[in-house]
Amino acid sequence: MADQTINVLERAGTVMTVSELILKKRNGYPLTCSDIEHLIAGYVKGTIPDYQMSALAMAIYFRGMNEEETAHLTRAMVNSGDTISLMDIPGIKTDKHSTGGVGDTTTLIVVPLVAAAGVPVAKLSGRGLGHTGGTLDKLESIPGFCAELTLNEFKTAVKKIGAAVTGQTIEMVPADKMLYALRDVTATVDSMPLIASSIMSKKLAAGADVIVLDVKVGDGAFIKDHSSAFELARIMVETGKKGGRQTAAVITNMDQPLGRAVGNALEVEEAVLTLRGEGPPDLEELCLTLGGWMLSLAGKASEHEEGKAILKKLLDNGSALLKFRELIQNQSGDPLVVEDLSLMPRAEKQVPVKSKAEGFVSSLKAEVIGQAAMKLGAGREKKDLRIDPVVGVTVEKKIGTMVKPGDILAHIHTSPEKEPARNTGIEDHERINDVQNMILSAYEFQNEPFEVPPLIIGCIK
Amino acid sequence: MADQTINVLERAGTVMTVSELILKKRNGYPLTCSDIEHLIAGYVKGTIPDYQMSALAMAIYFRGMNEEETAHLTRAMVNSGDTISLMDIPGIKTDKHSTGGVGDTTTLIVVPLVAAAGVPVAKLSGRGLGHTGGTLDKLESIPGFCAELTLNEFKTAVKKIGAAVTGQTIEMVPADKMLYALRDVTATVDSMPLIASSIMSKKLAAGADVIVLDVKVGDGAFIKDHSSAFELARIMVETGKKGGRQTAAVITNMDQPLGRAVGNALEVEEAVLTLRGEGPPDLEELCLTLGGWMLSLAGKASEHEEGKAILKKLLDNGSALLKFRELIQNQSGDPLVVEDLSLMPRAEKQVPVKSKAEGFVSSLKAEVIGQAAMKLGAGREKKDLRIDPVVGVTVEKKIGTMVKPGDILAHIHTSPEKEPARNTGIEDHERINDVQNMILSAYEFQNEPFEVPPLIIGCIK
Repeated sequence: MADQTINVLERAGTVMTVSELILKKRNGYPLTCSDIEHLIAGYVKGTIPDYQMSALAMAIYFRGMNEEETAHLTRAMVNSGDTISLMDIPGIKTDKHSTGGVGDTTTLIVVPLVAAAGVPVAKLSGRGLGHTGGTLDKLESIPGFCAELTLNEFKTAVKKIGAAVTGQTIEMVPADKMLYALRDVTATVDSMPLIASSIMSKKLAAGADVIVLDVKVGDGAFIKDHSSAFELARIMVETGKKGGRQTAAVITNMDQPLGRAVGNALEVEEAVLTLRGEGPPDLEELCLTLGGWMLSLAGKASEHEEGKAILKKLLDNGSALLKFRELIQNQSGDPLVVEDLSLMPRAEKQVPVKSKAEGFVSSLKAEVIGQAAMKLGAGREKKDLRIDPVVGVTVEKKIGTMVKPGDILAHIHTSPEKEPARNTGIEDHERINDVQNMILSAYEFQNEPFEVPPLIIGCIK
Repeated sequence: MADQTINVLERAGTVMTVSELILKKRNGYPLTCSDIEHLIAGYVKGTIPDYQMSALAMAIYFRGMNEEETAHLTRAMVNSGDTISLMDIPGIKTDKHSTGGVGDTTTLIVVPLVAAAGVPVAKLSGRGLGHTGGTLDKLESIPGFCAELTLNEFKTAVKKIGAAVTGQTIEMVPADKMLYALRDVTATVDSMPLIASSIMSKKLAAGADVIVLDVKVGDGAFIKDHSSAFELARIMVETGKKGGRQTAAVITNMDQPLGRAVGNALEVEEAVLTLRGEGPPDLEELCLTLGGWMLSLAGKASEHEEGKAILKKLLDNGSALLKFRELIQNQSGDPLVVEDLSLMPRAEKQVPVKSKAEGFVSSLKAEVIGQAAMKLGAGREKKDLRIDPVVGVTVEKKIGTMVKPGDILAHIHTSPEKEPARNTGIEDHERINDVQNMILSAYEFQNEPFEVPPLIIGCIK
């Protein structure tokens, strides 16, 4: 049944209809730069309807896109809206992005850490759906903190203290918002080139010269296998480079939660501890690695190991913590929290979850811990739900640790429901009981000690 | 990236969202009967939007559907609208369907032929887009003929004389209309299960007990290769059987036009000649074969060869022609046309197309001849264009024939443009010149004689 294929070949060189462009992709031919520009511009204008775009997305799911196509798609999406120019800020501006995991507190640490090295960090963050709030929700648990800067305030902050974190206030990449909403209801989310162009279009539009990506893989990430993670990392790095940015990706393990804290205020406390040099070793290691790459790509270090060493000193001598204090103060938050964590809001109850088993922790399912935190109110199940900043889970025993019956595996941080928006009709003790069982179900044990898989799986530059 | 897959498996047994059903198909799992009923009912009601249906259609294009799924889809489409019951008409009612070709005059011959054998034929036909009009347009070139019967008139006609041909007057298979319009603009037309369910839903809704399908393959058909044709035939026959109907398919060659005439009134004349036993041998052979299968499935013959023999006698003794006369008269047409073809409307000019080459005709591209007829006004390029009943092409030399320079290959039947609707601004002589060149380009020659490929390629029961 080659009729439609032949039409496409016959029409090569002439302007194709949208239907013919879908057919071209469906039949495995690459789309050209002008094909893609036409499709994205038409979709944003409303001249190309959702039903053609969703058919195209499904064809892309099956046929993929090569590096050129992915770069064209990314650029077309960037061009669909406003972009930020950071040209008037001196220095090489850096940005980081995580594909998302459970207890991912890295932004709160990496931003001040890298800025402390004299490398400007201009970070746009989101709120997002998920087990905990986004970086903005976490920062807003600091009393007074303003995470909604105007574009001008944002740029002024980066100029002044070398670091700022804010939500998006201009209309960046509307094509991505439209396309993502469509993909979400048409089973076309998990396509590598579509994921890569979605992430990279927002990074390119945000204007930084250096982009370091943290590609999470494992139980608590949306990518479950290493080869997919390396593939996505490779595509994103190529797309960033084709967009004229210094880009690298670190592929990291997300089988268990990162660090100990899963919850908004809890993660801010953990970030402060890490910036004091008292944080969980895995979280510190990842922050130094990501920051090391940022320094290296920005030319502040010859390679990322040297960057890590520079940053380690800034952790040890308190400069990074001081920069976080400065950032909080500059965005109207209470800077004293970095010295006195009791100024942070806290949950009313801490309930220990004790082990019934004995052995070495062989598995600690990040996904389940994330769901437990969400059940406590740390994340949003739906867009319009409020999060409770103080609730969450702190993990006390991570993979590889020896545990005896009665040992505390984790703490549940909970408050009785107050918000009508979160009123689920579930009694507090019932919820605590459910969450305890969830946490227990996340743990598996084995009798023999074993080598814990590495956190940093690989890097792509 | 197996996250979405896992969700589907986890949710097995519960009611799935549309997005999950798309995902299920995308990931290669078969849809259940209730999945498909839910999708089609929701689509027709408007609760499932076009953008989900087009993504699903693209997933079906890539993943296919098994026989069960195709049968479920077909039944769900039938259930989306009104259906015809022929229960109150005595006997086993028969129907035929052609997947469409160039110069396909078979319905005009098969309907009276089979009815002459005492087997009722209840035929719904269309107008359709294409090189010539549909069967209804052809019949309407007979002075006075009414091709728009009410359902009651249609059934009364079949009861009274055993044969009727009409357009669709009730709302049959609205799901197919909606889905086809969507597939047409989303590059999802050429999917075997979607084609099969589209055709078979209309046949099942039309109520006949016996369905014989003519699956065309070759240059002038939408299916270009034999294996696709056999596959489509097999799927349609299975779908018909699962719908409780006696079903068979004949796979036939459409590399060159069937018979000689391509045009509306021209094909009626050719049908009359064939019913007189004076028609082109290929057209007669195909009509006897299709009719033979109809008789056999209706139990009037032990197998289709016996059915063919019965019908050949009815051709030879004039019964079939008489039945056509009766059909025309019963639908208000001038019955005298079957005796005097000069009563049919005719084009003003017949222009011969002469060969410049010498040799045996090795190729006579049906598609190009069809386009030539369309250019003369025999078919509709767009839905709202009127057709000119008298124009067209008659082919004088078919594949395998020895031709010398100056021999007439074909005749162009043309009339100066009168209809404002067809006013193309092209002078008559220019159009004739173009059409002559098109016809010449359809012909290829070779020096040595060769065996002409058979018209009837195979049968599936």
